[in-house]
Amino acid sequence: MYPKAQDAAKGCVLWFTGLSGAGKSTLASRLSEMIEARGRHVEVLDGDLVRQHLSQGLGFTKEDRDMNVRRIGFVANLLARSSCCAIAAAISPYESVRQEIRAMVDNERAEFIEVFVNAPLSVVEERDTKGLYRRARAGELKNFTGVSDPYEEPSNPEVVVHTGEESVEESAAKVLSFLEERGLLAAEAAKG
Amino acid sequence: MYPKAQDAAKGCVLWFTGLSGAGKSTLASRLSEMIEARGRHVEVLDGDLVRQHLSQGLGFTKEDRDMNVRRIGFVANLLARSSCCAIAAAISPYESVRQEIRAMVDNERAEFIEVFVNAPLSVVEERDTKGLYRRARAGELKNFTGVSDPYEEPSNPEVVVHTGEESVEESAAKVLSFLEERGLLAAEAAKG
Repeated sequence: MYPKAQDAAKGCVLWFTGLSGAGKSTLASRLSEMIEARGRHVEVLDGDLVRQHLSQGLGFTKEDRDMNVRRIGFVANLLARSSCCAIAAAISPYESVRQEIRAMVDNERAEFIEVFVNAPLSVVEERDTKGLYRRARAGELKNFTGVSDPYEEPSNPEVVVHTGEESVEESAAKVLSFLEERGLLAAEAAKG
Repeated sequence: MYPKAQDAAKGCVLWFTGLSGAGKSTLASRLSEMIEARGRHVEVLDGDLVRQHLSQGLGFTKEDRDMNVRRIGFVANLLARSSCCAIAAAISPYESVRQEIRAMVDNERAEFIEVFVNAPLSVVEERDTKGLYRRARAGELKNFTGVSDPYEEPSNPEVVVHTGEESVEESAAKVLSFLEERGLLAAEAAKG
């Protein structure tokens, strides 16, 4: 008897949502290392990477953003169906589109886990690591989430991390705990 | 010790190329069942499906086709890195873009296998299952591969199937044999 492909480990879509500069990519990168070290394959679908490879030509109107986010969702679901832990790290500002993706994920093979990367606008704007908020306030960038475009907070996220107060390790630990609770990651062996 | 994700089974990109109507989707669908039955997860990236989910708005100029094919390649590589057997079934008429995708595939984790679905134009045009060749000859469809747009045959494909002469089962058997030879699929247990 061959093993059935459907016996393979359940995959997951870790869907990060939050303002620009909230720390989505940093957290995704750290979690990717930690989850890989525990034997699961991870792919990070970073907003910028995806715009380069799948969404050239799309802008930042609501319509274009929605299409970009749907494409990330489409690919994340395919990956999760393959037992991958797919981390999507894009602002994904609209609740309805995130819900659409949640509904699209193949529940037989994968779980959708929404992670709200919650840092207050005042904090990310103060940091402004890429200088984007300054440019948005100056009117140089249009449709900028949090400044000239809405950000709709998730109504019922599986995990909330407060990157304005927590270290990356603390935020990552919250996500790992959730994955363990859901049986998507083996609990770490006791130390000592 | 946790198992390392990189110890997971090597994935593959089965890249089908051939004229419209050559039987790419039919073969992809049959192979998908056969490979799944032997314990490997398969995702089929069909040209039409991908245009709907990843490439809305792209047309059939060389530039748009190339972008569509590159997007399929990007996703197929991500899937293959996750131990998936990703079957891409799109005309993908240009040799240079197929070579680009071959070069892009992560050789540590996956193999790129080009399958030339070779049916003569005369055969597919005679069949014309979707009535597309008739419309192309009538000038209703522009940039139609084989009629008003070039099809560049692969210079060195791993597998060639002759769907004008072979049954779907015969063509599928050729691909399965190749996967077995490359160690990407366990040889089928002896019968009887």
